[in-house]
Amino acid sequence: MAVRLDILAECSTNHARLGRLITPHGEVETPVFMPVATAGSIKGVWPDQVRAIGASMILGNAYHLLLRPGSKRVAAMGGLHRFMRWDGPILTDSGGYQAFSMANLLSVDEGGFTFRSIIDGRSIRLGAAECMEVQNDLGADVIMPLDDCPPAGADPARLRLALDRTHRWLGECVRHHARPHDQALFGIVQGGVDSVLREESLAAVTAFDLPGYAIGGVAVGEGTEAIHQTVAAVAPRLPRDRPRYLMGVGYERDLVAAVAAGVDMFDCVLPTRNGRNARVFTRFGPLNLRNACHAEDPGPIEPGCDCPGCGGGFSRAYLRHLFLAGEMLGPIIASVHNLRHYQRLMLDIRRAISEDAWSSLEAGWPVLATA
Amino acid sequence: MAVRLDILAECSTNHARLGRLITPHGEVETPVFMPVATAGSIKGVWPDQVRAIGASMILGNAYHLLLRPGSKRVAAMGGLHRFMRWDGPILTDSGGYQAFSMANLLSVDEGGFTFRSIIDGRSIRLGAAECMEVQNDLGADVIMPLDDCPPAGADPARLRLALDRTHRWLGECVRHHARPHDQALFGIVQGGVDSVLREESLAAVTAFDLPGYAIGGVAVGEGTEAIHQTVAAVAPRLPRDRPRYLMGVGYERDLVAAVAAGVDMFDCVLPTRNGRNARVFTRFGPLNLRNACHAEDPGPIEPGCDCPGCGGGFSRAYLRHLFLAGEMLGPIIASVHNLRHYQRLMLDIRRAISEDAWSSLEAGWPVLATA
Repeated sequence: MAVRLDILAECSTNHARLGRLITPHGEVETPVFMPVATAGSIKGVWPDQVRAIGASMILGNAYHLLLRPGSKRVAAMGGLHRFMRWDGPILTDSGGYQAFSMANLLSVDEGGFTFRSIIDGRSIRLGAAECMEVQNDLGADVIMPLDDCPPAGADPARLRLALDRTHRWLGECVRHHARPHDQALFGIVQGGVDSVLREESLAAVTAFDLPGYAIGGVAVGEGTEAIHQTVAAVAPRLPRDRPRYLMGVGYERDLVAAVAAGVDMFDCVLPTRNGRNARVFTRFGPLNLRNACHAEDPGPIEPGCDCPGCGGGFSRAYLRHLFLAGEMLGPIIASVHNLRHYQRLMLDIRRAISEDAWSSLEAGWPVLATA
Repeated sequence: MAVRLDILAECSTNHARLGRLITPHGEVETPVFMPVATAGSIKGVWPDQVRAIGASMILGNAYHLLLRPGSKRVAAMGGLHRFMRWDGPILTDSGGYQAFSMANLLSVDEGGFTFRSIIDGRSIRLGAAECMEVQNDLGADVIMPLDDCPPAGADPARLRLALDRTHRWLGECVRHHARPHDQALFGIVQGGVDSVLREESLAAVTAFDLPGYAIGGVAVGEGTEAIHQTVAAVAPRLPRDRPRYLMGVGYERDLVAAVAAGVDMFDCVLPTRNGRNARVFTRFGPLNLRNACHAEDPGPIEPGCDCPGCGGGFSRAYLRHLFLAGEMLGPIIASVHNLRHYQRLMLDIRRAISEDAWSSLEAGWPVLATA
């Protein structure tokens, strides 16, 4: 298999585990948080800086890269690692979720999606075969199958249909995957907040012997409690010796709850998206750097933070000025700080597992105690 | 005096000189090119990166910083160096030019400008006293007097009036300057493209014993030939032992011509402004990274360039993708490349002077031979 998870330690009080994910582009300590490079770039941050703040693995999006610059073009340029100058592991999301949430979706049928390109208006077909071809061209270490991911609140018939498709498409993706030796295709358990459907999906997806399994369809609008319940019900029952990936989640408390349920891998746009909008994370909770209370605050975003922004002495007053003046450096510094915040959380999570001292985690992260 | 220029070498074939400018925040090798941090940030670039690409001194704009965040606020935060985390020398432009070119100018009279803030609509008075107070608050190593800088093509009466005001305001600035011990107030020679007015201004401005002199009102729309003629006529006649600063200029050929006329200091927004718009400089001339010809070009912006973009292996194909996708990293990498391009030109200029081999410069810079 293209990737392998070595489990190094487990908590005695929950399902959390410390591991090492071995990929064709290097090893990753798990639980891991992957910064998001949707279109082949972590917005505003140089790859060197991404590495320097402790990220070891990143996520790209096959849907966006298919639309622009095109997966064939990325392949012609040597693949995504080389194209974007990231020599560590990469995971690509398939684009099924984006086809629903962002595109001018034209139709969904048993064979896949048809949507209109938001770039140039052409009609694009995305079935299991195309989904694998695109991701084989991009060349990420971990790739995801096409799935049908209905929004929270979809009716039972729609969920039923989506689940059947997702399982059938997984089989087709397995068949069409051309690089199983150096790209790990994960399965995705769907089923929304319905425990019966989740149960069924868990059985159907784990029937495939795959190098890893993901939980999809979470954090699509269903609320914190439902997220935690779904993850707690599904994660511990995924194969113990394979990496478990919770897609697109989330806030600090969501990550901690998911790790406790046995999840190993995460991605989320929050650090960079919020950073671009002046919203920064701290151990004590979030701040909005545009607020007037920061106008003459000489302190850093977070005292004691070792990110290049806080460590570099950039004050809240200066950052507020940069945001109000529309200076790019504001979003840049805030994004780097937020990315480092998430990496520090993961460091502390891994330490808590290593020391089998899970309950010690909250002491260092007051934000976890807030609702 | 707050700054001092030591001249280390001079060309035997022209007026070019190699020097060391000693300022309260460190020494600067001249001729020097100062990247522009208009609103207290070099757009998209961390101060560490600005240093790393070889910049030793930067420029801020008093007009923009007065409007936002306010010079009193910058002073409260410890001054501009500390506020923006740049511990090297800074020069601030006075804002007279911006008051004309950008603001809702309400009136100009013998005492200064009145304009409406583009930020919050309040009416702001900028006379010589206010101009000095603002720049004393910001605390740059070199500060500039208020000047009346009419556009190219202004009629003789307007030029006459502007010149008289500029000279009178210089006297007022000298009187109101509260920190002559640690901030060097330069004089500004004006006069447009009129050699008689330039002559008169040269005499009037150098009548003040100042730590440095600038040539203003150049590159305001008058064309390359006129720029070079004006600089060639004025620069060599400025006091030999004081730094000479050509404001807001320009392209590579303009810098080289000005150095040959004896200019020591430059600033220009071109590297960052053009970089943000996908226009990059090379020794062979400029490129537009949005052009389709770069779509699958695996090469760097410029082979052999040691900037973090070219040296980091980012291809033209990737950079084009970043610009088309609206990814911040495109403007960031292009800006850093352009800033390094200018610093490399200054390095070669300084070497040509040091080796008294001025004519060797063009061999390494084919762009200088183009019209």
